[in-house]
Amino acid sequence: MNLYLAITTFLGAFIALLFAGIKAKKVLLFSEGNSDMQRIANYIRTGADAYLKRQYKVVTIFFVAMFALLIVLSAFGFLSVFVPFAFVTGGMYSALAGFIGMKIATSSNARTANACTNSLNKGLNVAFSAGSVMGFAVVGLGLLDISVWFVLLNYVFKCTTSEIAATMVTFGMGASSMALFARVGGGVFTKAADVGADLVGKVETDIPEDDPRNPAVIADNVGDNVGDVAGMGADLYESYFGSIVSASALGVAAFGSINALALPMFMAFVGIIASVVGSFFVKTGENAEQKFLLKALRRGTSVSSVIVAIAAFPLVWFVMGKENISLYAAVLAGLLSGVLIGRGTEYFTSDTYKPTKDLAKTSKTGSATIIIEGMSLGMLSTAFPIIVVALCILVSYFIGGMGDAERGLYSIALAAVGMLSTLGITLASDAYGPVADNAGGIAEMSGLDHKVRERTDALDSLGNTTAATGKGFAIGSAALTALALMASYVDKIKTVAPSDFVLNMSIMNPSVLVGLFIGGCLPFVFAALTMESVGRAAQSVVIEVRRQFREIKGIMTGEKDADYARCIDICTRSSLREMVLPTVIAIAAPVITGLILGPNGVIGMLGGATVTGFLLAIMMSNSGGAWDNAKKYIEGGELEGKGSSQHKAAVVGDTVGDPFKDTSGPSINILIKLLSTVSIVFATLIVHFHLL
Amino acid sequence: MNLYLAITTFLGAFIALLFAGIKAKKVLLFSEGNSDMQRIANYIRTGADAYLKRQYKVVTIFFVAMFALLIVLSAFGFLSVFVPFAFVTGGMYSALAGFIGMKIATSSNARTANACTNSLNKGLNVAFSAGSVMGFAVVGLGLLDISVWFVLLNYVFKCTTSEIAATMVTFGMGASSMALFARVGGGVFTKAADVGADLVGKVETDIPEDDPRNPAVIADNVGDNVGDVAGMGADLYESYFGSIVSASALGVAAFGSINALALPMFMAFVGIIASVVGSFFVKTGENAEQKFLLKALRRGTSVSSVIVAIAAFPLVWFVMGKENISLYAAVLAGLLSGVLIGRGTEYFTSDTYKPTKDLAKTSKTGSATIIIEGMSLGMLSTAFPIIVVALCILVSYFIGGMGDAERGLYSIALAAVGMLSTLGITLASDAYGPVADNAGGIAEMSGLDHKVRERTDALDSLGNTTAATGKGFAIGSAALTALALMASYVDKIKTVAPSDFVLNMSIMNPSVLVGLFIGGCLPFVFAALTMESVGRAAQSVVIEVRRQFREIKGIMTGEKDADYARCIDICTRSSLREMVLPTVIAIAAPVITGLILGPNGVIGMLGGATVTGFLLAIMMSNSGGAWDNAKKYIEGGELEGKGSSQHKAAVVGDTVGDPFKDTSGPSINILIKLLSTVSIVFATLIVHFHLL
Repeated sequence: MNLYLAITTFLGAFIALLFAGIKAKKVLLFSEGNSDMQRIANYIRTGADAYLKRQYKVVTIFFVAMFALLIVLSAFGFLSVFVPFAFVTGGMYSALAGFIGMKIATSSNARTANACTNSLNKGLNVAFSAGSVMGFAVVGLGLLDISVWFVLLNYVFKCTTSEIAATMVTFGMGASSMALFARVGGGVFTKAADVGADLVGKVETDIPEDDPRNPAVIADNVGDNVGDVAGMGADLYESYFGSIVSASALGVAAFGSINALALPMFMAFVGIIASVVGSFFVKTGENAEQKFLLKALRRGTSVSSVIVAIAAFPLVWFVMGKENISLYAAVLAGLLSGVLIGRGTEYFTSDTYKPTKDLAKTSKTGSATIIIEGMSLGMLSTAFPIIVVALCILVSYFIGGMGDAERGLYSIALAAVGMLSTLGITLASDAYGPVADNAGGIAEMSGLDHKVRERTDALDSLGNTTAATGKGFAIGSAALTALALMASYVDKIKTVAPSDFVLNMSIMNPSVLVGLFIGGCLPFVFAALTMESVGRAAQSVVIEVRRQFREIKGIMTGEKDADYARCIDICTRSSLREMVLPTVIAIAAPVITGLILGPNGVIGMLGGATVTGFLLAIMMSNSGGAWDNAKKYIEGGELEGKGSSQHKAAVVGDTVGDPFKDTSGPSINILIKLLSTVSIVFATLIVHFHLL
Repeated sequence: MNLYLAITTFLGAFIALLFAGIKAKKVLLFSEGNSDMQRIANYIRTGADAYLKRQYKVVTIFFVAMFALLIVLSAFGFLSVFVPFAFVTGGMYSALAGFIGMKIATSSNARTANACTNSLNKGLNVAFSAGSVMGFAVVGLGLLDISVWFVLLNYVFKCTTSEIAATMVTFGMGASSMALFARVGGGVFTKAADVGADLVGKVETDIPEDDPRNPAVIADNVGDNVGDVAGMGADLYESYFGSIVSASALGVAAFGSINALALPMFMAFVGIIASVVGSFFVKTGENAEQKFLLKALRRGTSVSSVIVAIAAFPLVWFVMGKENISLYAAVLAGLLSGVLIGRGTEYFTSDTYKPTKDLAKTSKTGSATIIIEGMSLGMLSTAFPIIVVALCILVSYFIGGMGDAERGLYSIALAAVGMLSTLGITLASDAYGPVADNAGGIAEMSGLDHKVRERTDALDSLGNTTAATGKGFAIGSAALTALALMASYVDKIKTVAPSDFVLNMSIMNPSVLVGLFIGGCLPFVFAALTMESVGRAAQSVVIEVRRQFREIKGIMTGEKDADYARCIDICTRSSLREMVLPTVIAIAAPVITGLILGPNGVIGMLGGATVTGFLLAIMMSNSGGAWDNAKKYIEGGELEGKGSSQHKAAVVGDTVGDPFKDTSGPSINILIKLLSTVSIVFATLIVHFHLL
């Protein structure tokens, strides 16, 4: 079995990375269009490169410091000696996933715009291929990280199965930390540029969006790449990796066999094959309308899901034996939950459905009412995904795990793996959005034909739908992964605790209860900090843009170019400064809570953070998405269209929603996973030193 | 001991009610001013009376239906036969507390305005006396309800101590239900009128606040009384009652003695005496400035707190014996926590401190930025009260209860009792606010001298500070009371469960976990529903006000009176319609959760709802309060003052904050307590019938 496993994971990683490479090559064959387009694309590319380079410098300092700390802890026996190294590799792979995604995205925006001069379908083709590079790079790198460490631990260091499982579950922290840096930094960058550009551009000087005279316009486009692409890639890399290793660890705890460890990894392999097959179904006739495009994308993910659903049955049967075939129910529940949560998000945020249409109407009584209604829409929209996740947990535990505690938790983790198995293709549909968004910007700035802009708008609007689905999916998978990691944490505590330590996870244990309150508070504080970061960073962009309009004569007449680089530099510096505190809090919180309240308090904290984090992330994403689409709905000509007082109110809603949906909301996903991975890494330390 | 207890509780109730009566008589001796003032006051009084009358009709239907259901359940042995009757008495007392508060408030608004023609201090005197009537009526009725039932159960039905304790803890549901109706109905009424009046008045027709030409202006003033006064009274009645009976029940479970049952009731008695004494310290020189007024109010609450802090020591010593003197730590922790949470709320929402000042500055870049910053202020402000409550729990449990599970939980409940012991005077300072607010409205509408309006404004501004403190106090006490009720629920389950039932409250038990998610979601859904209710109701007010401006010629010139009654009627009908669904959800949720997930799921649900409810209520109250005061700060002349673009942005913030702080936020307080009391009432049913 060990050999099969080593081969399969390597093979899966190889196929995914090969497929990503082929897609990348295909995209790069397209032309970047005329010299204007190339120039603008180059601005964006240079800005994004410069940002990532500087981000990695800051992150490197953090990683070196943490590495040193972990080395000390492992020298004192509080950690496996592998953890410090795995911490670094996890961070590197996660960064690499984001880097590849960003590289290909900044190389395909102009190409997409140019392809749109031919046809809508060609544009989709380029943009989706670019998304695929990122999607498959993420899963490929995730599985590669797993396979390399498995081979090392199994063949080089001759660890036992349970040693392998226990060690690998501690490996998520590096990836989580990197993901949080990427999400917070990128999220602050993108929204500071966006809000700053809008506040001075649209509101004060009355020039349209993506107007090349706006000094912050390139920064805005850079932001789409460093925030939505690199951030999203790092985020889901981490969920993918975390769900697999925590499922494996729980499997070994429940069954004690290498087979239980192998199942999640085999599932990942099957998911990659299914995603590759599915992506061949994403095509449509040359002159297709927009609604066919959405169908084409949907067909791809549906085919992949069906393949996984079918293949998982024999897989579970052969790997776990027919006596454990019930675990298949968990895989199905996970797959289905992912789809349902995505659809629920779409229902609440797409302007083809009632909620967003109704929200747009509240703009008639001004910006206050659209804000109130948008908030309440977001809050109300939490109920459906909560019910879906609740049912998924119950089905996984009681049917999948047949009510047995350890098997049940393994089963919940398998649901997370099932949900994330088709990540290759779901992430492709998601990462396609920012590319289309950028393409629209380039089309506008380089003064392409109105028709081209219409096509890029159609792609962008489709991208909004897939982004909404993707966000729901990211949050749902983060919640399930966090639960799996919590369960792994409990197992870890049981293994490392001295014999006199009592694990009392009762909710009426005051340590758990206080942990629950503290944990519940963390996402609120985190969201507040990241929103304030956006506010501060946007202010500095506003000041700079105003300065340029004032000092550089000839910007408004188009005689002189604005100083784009300066705005990018300001966003970069602000976002790098702002990303440190939230990350430090996220890492310090479980350690401090643990040192005071002990492991029971940590469990409470993880539970509290997962619950409120899930709720707050959904609320913020959906409120933000609905405001965005309500604005677009009005811009599409409804309710008196652009320039009306309704539109002005909707713009306020959209601006409030920006940090909600693209900075704070998505960062919370990572927060709840990072808290768990940090807790797992420091478990041994905490179990020996704590106050209460 | 039983006799002492019966006498003490009766005596406490008698003193409180007598004091309320004396204060009421004193207030009514003042003149209501000139005929204009009397006329307007009469409009408000009539409107508020009409509203309450119709609300009680709706509520009566609900109470009759619930009474029938409870009778059936008790016939089948799922309930003590006393519960249906106690359900009704609890509801009646709670309604009565609200009614008395509202009656005196609507009788003292014009009197306060008239007193302000003499001096600021006289105005304060009248308004604070009115607040005292409400404060002491609430605690008096609470203790009366307890003493009547104690005498009945002890002397008439000859119940044992543990029977008394177990029975009385089920009595909260009537008060909770009534409180929720009052809070949601009143909250929707007040904010629908306020938002509706502002949207058409200030924004569309550009007439000032409280202008008698605005048809919704009387409804707005009625709303202050039915929402802020009646709602607040019912809410805190319920916390007061709930904290005492749950502490008594936990005391009997922990110590098995009548003394443990008696201690919380003696504490209540001491608190009443302390509040009476404290209220004599609320006075100041005739020509005092505003800051001395705040000091005068503070002196009253401080004196009361110190008296309780001193008297509690011998009380605990004599009642529980010196071996249990550690319980005194819990009382102190509770008292101190109440003060700290109030101060924290004040820091975040008063414009004398940095957060609100900074918030006001963000109005410079428009309404979107002030909304973003206000949200993040609210979220960030959750951290401090969370830490205070966490410390209070830990101190109570580990020091007060010396780490013993049962004593620890009793100790936590005692902290809630300690916090609420001085409710008489804290509620007086709080209920004083709406009276001052109304007085300002009457001064404006009856065209009193500019100087008088300035004085009422000063009183109103002071009222904002005490309201902020009061809200923090209400939320903090609700959270501690909810925890005490949760502990009582667990005790109840242990008593009624069949021998084969396993209580597994571990956070990794999937029933608990799913309950945690469901419970966590409830405050979000609840806040969403109540906000939407305000939106819908405000829309109908807007339509009506527009109609009157269009159809009744001569309103704008002052030749004809607006049809105030029509607006009041619309608010009444809307709010009564809107209050039903949230209440039904709050009552159905624990029953449905219980029937599916069983008692473990219910515990999870209560924990989740308490944590997210606490967080959301603080966030919404503080965001709303800060927006309100940021607007007032600008209106005071800062940042270019009234009419500037900053002011317009701040008005948007204030309007968003209205349903946040006065409808949804405060309703959540009651939601979390109602969920617990419903769970306790239906515990026997659920423990016998549940799916998982």
